[in-house]
Amino acid sequence: MRAQTADKPRIGWIGTGVMGFWMCRHVMEAGYVMSVYNRSPDKAQPLVEMGATLKQSPAGVAADSDIVFTIVGFPKDVREVILGQRGVLSAMPPGGVVVDMTTSEPDLARQMAEEGLQRQVTVLDAPVSGGDVGAREARLSIMVGGDPETFKRVEPLFRVMGKTVALMGPAGSGQHCKMANQILIAGTMIGVVESLLYAHRAGLDRDTVIAVIGQGAAGSWSINNLGPRIVAGNFEPGFMVDHFIKDLGIALDEATRMKLELPGLSLARRLYRKVKALGHGRKGTHALILALEALNPPAWKVYE
Amino acid sequence: MRAQTADKPRIGWIGTGVMGFWMCRHVMEAGYVMSVYNRSPDKAQPLVEMGATLKQSPAGVAADSDIVFTIVGFPKDVREVILGQRGVLSAMPPGGVVVDMTTSEPDLARQMAEEGLQRQVTVLDAPVSGGDVGAREARLSIMVGGDPETFKRVEPLFRVMGKTVALMGPAGSGQHCKMANQILIAGTMIGVVESLLYAHRAGLDRDTVIAVIGQGAAGSWSINNLGPRIVAGNFEPGFMVDHFIKDLGIALDEATRMKLELPGLSLARRLYRKVKALGHGRKGTHALILALEALNPPAWKVYE
Repeated sequence: MRAQTADKPRIGWIGTGVMGFWMCRHVMEAGYVMSVYNRSPDKAQPLVEMGATLKQSPAGVAADSDIVFTIVGFPKDVREVILGQRGVLSAMPPGGVVVDMTTSEPDLARQMAEEGLQRQVTVLDAPVSGGDVGAREARLSIMVGGDPETFKRVEPLFRVMGKTVALMGPAGSGQHCKMANQILIAGTMIGVVESLLYAHRAGLDRDTVIAVIGQGAAGSWSINNLGPRIVAGNFEPGFMVDHFIKDLGIALDEATRMKLELPGLSLARRLYRKVKALGHGRKGTHALILALEALNPPAWKVYE
Repeated sequence: MRAQTADKPRIGWIGTGVMGFWMCRHVMEAGYVMSVYNRSPDKAQPLVEMGATLKQSPAGVAADSDIVFTIVGFPKDVREVILGQRGVLSAMPPGGVVVDMTTSEPDLARQMAEEGLQRQVTVLDAPVSGGDVGAREARLSIMVGGDPETFKRVEPLFRVMGKTVALMGPAGSGQHCKMANQILIAGTMIGVVESLLYAHRAGLDRDTVIAVIGQGAAGSWSINNLGPRIVAGNFEPGFMVDHFIKDLGIALDEATRMKLELPGLSLARRLYRKVKALGHGRKGTHALILALEALNPPAWKVYE
């Protein structure tokens, strides 16, 4: 680890799960002093062994930090760790910055930015895409909403975690961009699983089909990366169905608020809820094929 | 043009439209003797000037050819040029090969293969993807169904037109693979247009959104190539809505025959029919945004 320089901000990190662990580690490796908090402290232990200071609450992290990053599970967790009684804002010194990297509600992002302002704390929303592999390899896309000056201040830190970093607009805009990302994935995944189910029923070899159609105008990250896993019957996440259902729910609520009817997104949520109802909520998003199978017995043979 | 060698088969070409023209031209440039027929003879004229012999009917082409390629508009056109009274099979010498490269019905492909067999003519189905650009640059994907020995005989000709060439199985399998391709595009396009409409309504800059989300797990050929055209309000085809509706109809009919419910494909056809009803049947597939706009007034500003 490089030595801490005096002018570097002190960093706090809340949420050291499958994504946050690697992101926090990259920041430490770039030579920043780090305080960490995680609901299950054992997941933060390797970071403590690298030199991070373990705190007992989000407020404890905030009290010793200039910039605090949060990446937790659901909007209710974001609300708790940032706005709660022992939350970040309760103890963050004026002039501080809070960056929520959880995929969460645009409305909540705006609310947190407003509450921060009242305490002279700037709150950015900065959800990411790229999954655990992107986090580990520091190749995430980071979509940021909030104050442009603060974005510039935090940008060097984003650059140690991600490859594509973009300020999308005012508070909430990072979350909106992430929603656009998830809506795009939702439609694409419907195409992927319907295409593979059709090909299978038509008697085609699905690996050959993927090799042929994945290269042209039908090609996508999803067909080329998740298609072969579907054919192999490997439904390990990747990105988990339960979390994707959360994201699609946020997107649908926002769309409703904007009086926007998005029939593909509605269909995707209906199908993903079916996947969860079948008991596959903790499998990867490509388990969508299992909802199509249930809709179309005789069974798609997953483990043939 | 290279000189014709004596052992090369004589080639016939039926359908010299936006795709067929270039494909035929590549075959001629590879040194094959060519007979051509097109419903509008003027479109074949540049090929005649390059040395092709213009014929007055599909039968006229067949009589002078060892291998005949067809690429026309709709299944009814395929039926007419191959099975019709002055069609290819009426005059094709025994031992000949007919290759239909139109995107058409798997059932029709099987029927033509059977009728061919009775006349000792082998019929392959070999639809393509890659569009007019792929045809011009000889970078098509070619998905073939039919007899493996005949496939090997025709493969050198496929290789002068395309980059990816694959035998998918018996007669009809090429068409089935193309259907899987179109089903995949249909789902992806729903994701593309819903994502961009959401982003626009949320106040984001759509070009920035495409640049960010097009690179990761949401990325696809469609978002990266057609997304910017949507933002620019440029709906020139690419691939035409009218033809895509034909393809989706064939796919849905086949799915029904296989007792397969594909809700995303059904939704896509409903939305594309809406695009056509709005008067945009001759625009590109990315005009799907116009159906979403109609579903969600105030209008998506196409030409802002």
